[in-house]
Amino acid sequence: MLHKNLINPKSIVVIGASNNIQTPGGSVLKNLIEHNFKGKLIAVNPKETEVQGIKCYQEVSQIPKVDLAIIAISAKFTLETTKILTHTKNTKGFIIFSAGYSEKDAEGKKLEQEIVNEINNAGGTLLGPNNIGFINQNYVGVFTRPIPKLNSKGVDFISGSGATAVFIIEAAMSTGLTFSSVYSVGNSAQIGVEEVLEHLDNTFDDIKSSKVKLLYIESIENPKKLLKHASSLIQKGCKIAAIKAGSSSAGSRAASSHTGALANSDNAVDALFKKAGIVRCYGRNELITVASIFMLPALKGKNIAIITHAGGPAVMLTDTLSKNGLNVPEISGKDSDELLSKLYLGSSVSNPIDFLATGNAEQLETIIDYCENKFSGIDAMVVIFGSPGLFEVYDVYDILHKKMRTCNKPIFPVLPSVVNVKKEIDYFISKGNVMFPDEVLFGNALAKTLNPTNTAIKDVNSFTVNLKTIRRIIENSTNGFLPPQQIKELLIAAKIPVVNEVICNSKEECILASKKLGLPVVMKIVGSIHKSDVGGIILNINSIDKLLDSYSKIMKIGSAKAVLIQPMKKGIELFIGVKKEGSFGHLILCGLGGIFIEVIKDISSSLAPVSINEATEMIKNLKSYKIIKGVRNQEGVNPILFAEIITKVSYLVSVAPEIVELDLNPLLGNSKEILAVDARIRIEK
Amino acid sequence: MLHKNLINPKSIVVIGASNNIQTPGGSVLKNLIEHNFKGKLIAVNPKETEVQGIKCYQEVSQIPKVDLAIIAISAKFTLETTKILTHTKNTKGFIIFSAGYSEKDAEGKKLEQEIVNEINNAGGTLLGPNNIGFINQNYVGVFTRPIPKLNSKGVDFISGSGATAVFIIEAAMSTGLTFSSVYSVGNSAQIGVEEVLEHLDNTFDDIKSSKVKLLYIESIENPKKLLKHASSLIQKGCKIAAIKAGSSSAGSRAASSHTGALANSDNAVDALFKKAGIVRCYGRNELITVASIFMLPALKGKNIAIITHAGGPAVMLTDTLSKNGLNVPEISGKDSDELLSKLYLGSSVSNPIDFLATGNAEQLETIIDYCENKFSGIDAMVVIFGSPGLFEVYDVYDILHKKMRTCNKPIFPVLPSVVNVKKEIDYFISKGNVMFPDEVLFGNALAKTLNPTNTAIKDVNSFTVNLKTIRRIIENSTNGFLPPQQIKELLIAAKIPVVNEVICNSKEECILASKKLGLPVVMKIVGSIHKSDVGGIILNINSIDKLLDSYSKIMKIGSAKAVLIQPMKKGIELFIGVKKEGSFGHLILCGLGGIFIEVIKDISSSLAPVSINEATEMIKNLKSYKIIKGVRNQEGVNPILFAEIITKVSYLVSVAPEIVELDLNPLLGNSKEILAVDARIRIEK
Repeated sequence: MLHKNLINPKSIVVIGASNNIQTPGGSVLKNLIEHNFKGKLIAVNPKETEVQGIKCYQEVSQIPKVDLAIIAISAKFTLETTKILTHTKNTKGFIIFSAGYSEKDAEGKKLEQEIVNEINNAGGTLLGPNNIGFINQNYVGVFTRPIPKLNSKGVDFISGSGATAVFIIEAAMSTGLTFSSVYSVGNSAQIGVEEVLEHLDNTFDDIKSSKVKLLYIESIENPKKLLKHASSLIQKGCKIAAIKAGSSSAGSRAASSHTGALANSDNAVDALFKKAGIVRCYGRNELITVASIFMLPALKGKNIAIITHAGGPAVMLTDTLSKNGLNVPEISGKDSDELLSKLYLGSSVSNPIDFLATGNAEQLETIIDYCENKFSGIDAMVVIFGSPGLFEVYDVYDILHKKMRTCNKPIFPVLPSVVNVKKEIDYFISKGNVMFPDEVLFGNALAKTLNPTNTAIKDVNSFTVNLKTIRRIIENSTNGFLPPQQIKELLIAAKIPVVNEVICNSKEECILASKKLGLPVVMKIVGSIHKSDVGGIILNINSIDKLLDSYSKIMKIGSAKAVLIQPMKKGIELFIGVKKEGSFGHLILCGLGGIFIEVIKDISSSLAPVSINEATEMIKNLKSYKIIKGVRNQEGVNPILFAEIITKVSYLVSVAPEIVELDLNPLLGNSKEILAVDARIRIEK
Repeated sequence: MLHKNLINPKSIVVIGASNNIQTPGGSVLKNLIEHNFKGKLIAVNPKETEVQGIKCYQEVSQIPKVDLAIIAISAKFTLETTKILTHTKNTKGFIIFSAGYSEKDAEGKKLEQEIVNEINNAGGTLLGPNNIGFINQNYVGVFTRPIPKLNSKGVDFISGSGATAVFIIEAAMSTGLTFSSVYSVGNSAQIGVEEVLEHLDNTFDDIKSSKVKLLYIESIENPKKLLKHASSLIQKGCKIAAIKAGSSSAGSRAASSHTGALANSDNAVDALFKKAGIVRCYGRNELITVASIFMLPALKGKNIAIITHAGGPAVMLTDTLSKNGLNVPEISGKDSDELLSKLYLGSSVSNPIDFLATGNAEQLETIIDYCENKFSGIDAMVVIFGSPGLFEVYDVYDILHKKMRTCNKPIFPVLPSVVNVKKEIDYFISKGNVMFPDEVLFGNALAKTLNPTNTAIKDVNSFTVNLKTIRRIIENSTNGFLPPQQIKELLIAAKIPVVNEVICNSKEECILASKKLGLPVVMKIVGSIHKSDVGGIILNINSIDKLLDSYSKIMKIGSAKAVLIQPMKKGIELFIGVKKEGSFGHLILCGLGGIFIEVIKDISSSLAPVSINEATEMIKNLKSYKIIKGVRNQEGVNPILFAEIITKVSYLVSVAPEIVELDLNPLLGNSKEILAVDARIRIEK
């Protein structure tokens, strides 16, 4: 929890306050004054007695007790200042603008830690250092401009980059997006994005709190905390959109055909966001557009009516929505004929509803009423209305404003004439509306918000596994790849179905095994991880001669320690993989085997623990899902069995977290059974 | 060619001119006057003697001879007016604003055609009707606002929608994009987008003409004309970006596993744009961003230095570029150490080059100089520079302005502070620059412009085919699917390698055939198009017993007329398809067969004629290209042979254009040969 003195201070001192508003200390004081901080303001500056009309002390030691300190002095003076504040001024809230700490060098890091220790010992809260500050409904504690339009129902915005926060606020100014709070966490010395989110979760009030959270994150230090509180907020009715920048360094890692290698950390971020229900964005414009959509009533269906006075944007929007899984359904019938009769000749109501360049406010109102009340197949409306510059359009935007408040179906305003009717747009957003200037950017963003996956699962399955065996194997194992026998035992203990197999050390054992399993069989090398690369897999051995011949061949491979014999099974090749992604935990992957993983890279993933519903979704999201269902009368795979094994694998790694890598590749599946025929497991304790 | 009187009139009459500037006739006259049309202006209005200071006639018949007429009166009066102008006033240029023609009803269409006939007979040119008019360096003949910044080196913009043109111009105002001309073609009664492009091509002057063309198209009436002139312009050094709206109606057609069905008209548009080298855009913002990139020097390599004073946008841009195939390579070594020593402590030069929030103009200049002169691995620079609102940044933008003109490497300015330094940005673009407000939208657009495919091919291959046989077969065929024997003859005549095959009508013939071809063989039904759906294909027949049994089975199928026997070939399944796409001509498709086409829909396409280079590109663009090259030591397919057959198919349909559908599916390929083993050809004369 962030200390209440940071959130709602009764008194604020600006240390380094200045009459020069081009300095951070001057600028933040100006912002505090201009935006009506209701409490007591104090300034500290060794050279002044009054700054911007505020009483100024020359030294921190002279000031009265104060709730919050905004520190805008050089890094080297901050530790001493902090000490005085914590020890003698009962200060609990700290914002430190200056740079020169952990982002600079080891010495700076040490200084930063000492400051954090001081504040921790005092039970205080620190935002920064190296940030732009903090804004909420109580005060404007940033040194930057512009100050966004504040509104307790606007977005709560947490940013890991100060400059990016400024640019996002700037871009949001013209679209009407308002802010409830802006947290710039700077170096996140004590409080990072995760801790702010935790605070917003713990203090959430269904009536008073904003329901939209925006995050700009460059590094997730505590993924589990992020997941927990994002999920919790979303379960409380919030919507969250986030940029996680820095995906490319991971993404650009040399591609590898090894399944685990596909699960790079950006996949883990994707999986975390998906699990929490966070809408992932990739740029400022997209974040703002999604946030603006979040400020409007949520879509309850996919069927959109496009109401327009200009054909082109409506066609482009139709394209965009259609390509993204939304519908622009044809409207026809008695009601639509009736509507058409009320519009100018040449209008069209078949959707897009085009009421022509000459269309007016009254007609717009009529059309919206029909969409709201008569066209039952319509879930939401997009109204596109600009101007060629001949007339004012205040009356049209007044109708929009009114209807957006009275209609049950969401109405999204696309107002493209950012020059011709700039005044009308400013007027429209001054009344508390958001608007979208580009229909295609809007349409893409709208589609992103449509299917937020469900939040972290409560229905995690547990299985009656042989926990003792699992733990015994893990505890007896050393770091590295598990030997085949232990892998088999482990999978059986976890109730994961495996193909029968016998390890053979001689030709005689091979013959015995083949009798037990029945020909044809498969023979595999024991002693090499990349079996097929060394020619260590021989399929379809259907005679004793071939069996003995195969044994000789495999045992000639340098690394061969023995052979493993399995019955030759048929079915569709599947795979399930696990990769431990540091503090994100285990990432569970699934897909079809063979070329689907190696060439198409068709993989679904989810962060453990994976519920049966999540596993089913993973399977359905595969491009190759058609093959699992069965194409061209060929037998498919039972998706329920597949989902079950995915869940069991997820459960196995939850009780054996020392597993850092696991590959069931392939499993062979059909409509009746799925069996793991090859597996690798790597342990790291 | 458009008549010179439309392009550069010495005199213009506005028919329907008005003192009310909220009417099109009043507004266009105002625009003409305010933007300094140098020739003679005439007004016609039955109720006025002077309009906006211009002499006004009450009837058209009273005016002197005039080069260009801008007609802003009701549709019903236009034919008579046009007649008077063509017959007695020597008028050759016509712009008609009014609606009520072909877009309205059959009567309007008739009226429109009569007007076109009048103008055609007079050898004149008509833009419209139902448009917003025309702008070039000579006059501003639109009734809408705003008027974009005009510049003979700005973009030539041709729009199939007037309102969309206005919205695009509005969105372009704040980014510095300037215009050489704007053509609004309205109903395209006489002149459509294609004809304007033809005109721009035919009148292209390497020194005087603009090198950037933008198109907004809702329907391509004459794809061959568009392809010809777009290709020609691009070969002359132009760059073209275009929106083709209305892709979704085609895209939303029910998906079908039939190969031809994938080649809907939007695929044809894609193929045409690719062939011409047109960069396809999907929204106004994207079109403007690409156009602005086109106004700057072209990228000559993929290695980008990102120079920034703010970390976040640089990280997001790095992500965006990396994901789109561009590089942000690490910079290191002596020169970079030297550069680092010239920046503030805490800066980074490893790329992104971050010179901190405190970075100044002088440092920016130094960094740009290093990127230009010392960092040989860098091909272009992106400079990100905004402001937290404390200082003015004129000096920084002056450096940018200077360096963009003196450096050989392209410099792209990303200026995110659209509020804080709006004045500086306006100043920067007033000096003739473009700028990009959002780094991610910029990065995505930049990647689009990187690899414009080459323009329409000159190296079309022709083959020594048996033309006589081909024409004989086509001419003797009736509409519908060709019978197997003719297909085989046709493919052989076109030098397309086909697997041996024998058609058998009895068990005896089957035995003879199997002896000739050698067991194992494949038996297929003759008489059904969807062979496998009816169980009409039996593979791997390796004994005479199985042969006879198979014959009996297949002949029991209702539609069976005979069987066809082929040797059982092994290899990778490929397919080549052709679909005639109306006036676009033949679309040639290729890919891997089986699940790759049915499940993954991994298909490359190109408009015929397809050169060997184009075919090679088609193959390389397949997701499954890895399989063609061979994965995991498995034999691949010889891509040269594959490309050759694609080219041969393209040549076949060029000499037999009556082929509306052709499927070689599958062909079986390995490193030595590729053979067509099944084929369908449909003829429509």
